[in-house]
Amino acid sequence: MKLSRLGEDSLLARLLPRLPVGDGVIAGAGDDVAVVHAPGRDHFLLLKTDCVVEGVHFKTAAPPAAIGWKAMMRPLSDFAAVSGLPQFALVTLVIGRSKRSEWVEKIYGGLKRAAARFKVSVVGGETSSTRGPTVISVSVSGFVEKSRWVARSRGRAGDSLFVTGRLGGAGKNKHLRFVPRIEQARWLTEHFSIHAMMDLSDGLAADLPRLARASRLSFQIETDRLPLTAGATIENAISDGEDYELLFAISSRAGDHLRDAWKKRFPRIQLTRIGRLLPLSAINVSPARANRQLKGGYVHFQ
Amino acid sequence: MKLSRLGEDSLLARLLPRLPVGDGVIAGAGDDVAVVHAPGRDHFLLLKTDCVVEGVHFKTAAPPAAIGWKAMMRPLSDFAAVSGLPQFALVTLVIGRSKRSEWVEKIYGGLKRAAARFKVSVVGGETSSTRGPTVISVSVSGFVEKSRWVARSRGRAGDSLFVTGRLGGAGKNKHLRFVPRIEQARWLTEHFSIHAMMDLSDGLAADLPRLARASRLSFQIETDRLPLTAGATIENAISDGEDYELLFAISSRAGDHLRDAWKKRFPRIQLTRIGRLLPLSAINVSPARANRQLKGGYVHFQ
Repeated sequence: MKLSRLGEDSLLARLLPRLPVGDGVIAGAGDDVAVVHAPGRDHFLLLKTDCVVEGVHFKTAAPPAAIGWKAMMRPLSDFAAVSGLPQFALVTLVIGRSKRSEWVEKIYGGLKRAAARFKVSVVGGETSSTRGPTVISVSVSGFVEKSRWVARSRGRAGDSLFVTGRLGGAGKNKHLRFVPRIEQARWLTEHFSIHAMMDLSDGLAADLPRLARASRLSFQIETDRLPLTAGATIENAISDGEDYELLFAISSRAGDHLRDAWKKRFPRIQLTRIGRLLPLSAINVSPARANRQLKGGYVHFQ
Repeated sequence: MKLSRLGEDSLLARLLPRLPVGDGVIAGAGDDVAVVHAPGRDHFLLLKTDCVVEGVHFKTAAPPAAIGWKAMMRPLSDFAAVSGLPQFALVTLVIGRSKRSEWVEKIYGGLKRAAARFKVSVVGGETSSTRGPTVISVSVSGFVEKSRWVARSRGRAGDSLFVTGRLGGAGKNKHLRFVPRIEQARWLTEHFSIHAMMDLSDGLAADLPRLARASRLSFQIETDRLPLTAGATIENAISDGEDYELLFAISSRAGDHLRDAWKKRFPRIQLTRIGRLLPLSAINVSPARANRQLKGGYVHFQ
């Protein structure tokens, strides 16, 4: 059935209550405002919004369940980046008028499956229609223990730099299927002192200099060590983006112990030491210039 | 300058930090995730998202500052509805490609002025572009003391029904300029026991039956008492929507005292007793049918 004949409100009323609702929700989808339990004084509240736009973040022909999955997982990946736990999501769907209601239902199916994967409750949202491309905006709140929050800015000179998983080649549908590294980030901060962390959404060439700049440090990576997705080149690993893997800094001594413990806990997920953080003075280039060098292929500039 | 030449990221980087940032923000706009202080165990956390779409919620020719104002104020009005205080906002702008950057800056100006009006910090967001109409999605978090949360569902038979301000005629730019009744709602729950409350966004004919239904009650209103916007008819007051005034239920005895106190505290804002809540058995129509009667003009059905 064409969406315009179904009515937006009834669609929302039908689909939203089907989404998972978990602990801590006092009033949720169907109420004006979501009312939920606050995380408490020993936690920080985390807030993140991300949107996907048809033709920009997904192709019109992409499987709708995968579009919904990606729309939910993008903001969740940022929770992994700070070692946080997502709890509540608000979903706004602005749907192209030519879409069929079955297509929208499949998007909700993907949103639902992604939310359930991390026990996130969808507590509200809105639908509207548009003459233009479909837009899905997902806002997520959650928390992190104050003692376990990891920023980008506390890397130290000499720290080892690690990445999870494999990099590059996200364009081939990997970007529609990724699982944010929330469990891995939580495990890391439970057992180790992680100095700085972020998720790789724009590619190593863009993201690593951001971490270094936030920590007022320089860096050195060894490109031949980069863990490549099957079929990807080093250039892909550096520049493609949308890997949604973790990049983090840890003291080099702890890094040795980490590798053994990681292998036991996550035997199927690669963990790779790709380089280290250095004092700004150690390398005679600014983080901005290092970024350009990384992009230009002069990566191994030790 | 055309937006496409400016670059979306640089626009966001330039505009977001200009937005107001207040207390409780540990990491905000410019960071991956907003990190803020949690409200604590004696409060509920409130979450709300609302979007405005060009051609649906505002005309293309509307003043951009007013569009930004409305985009921020719509979710804030829902905080008034539950006697909550908004604190943090995330703003997603999906901008039509033909728009000029000056237009976008004026939208941000409106968002900023609206956020500042209620000391809301804009702690993150995203911009993207679209071939279609512009979409602005604003997600807001805040809190309410557990003891002061007002739902729709606790109205009691015999309660007086009040509305703030004047109803109807929102189409004539009133909908672009309204100020959510947050201060009034906070004052009400500080000094009175409010049984049920909501904000009038869809019009009395749609909203009042919702409150009655949530409270499992019927209602009776006297249409000749409705406070009308200058130039508006009773039909406008019932059906136009977008008034963003408060509708609430209070015991009839407290209601008499309330009127005197309100007049002293808010001398410029009308407060009108428009009717009362009744047991379901008192009127031989369902809330759904009452809704239809209200729409059809048979409102005064006592």
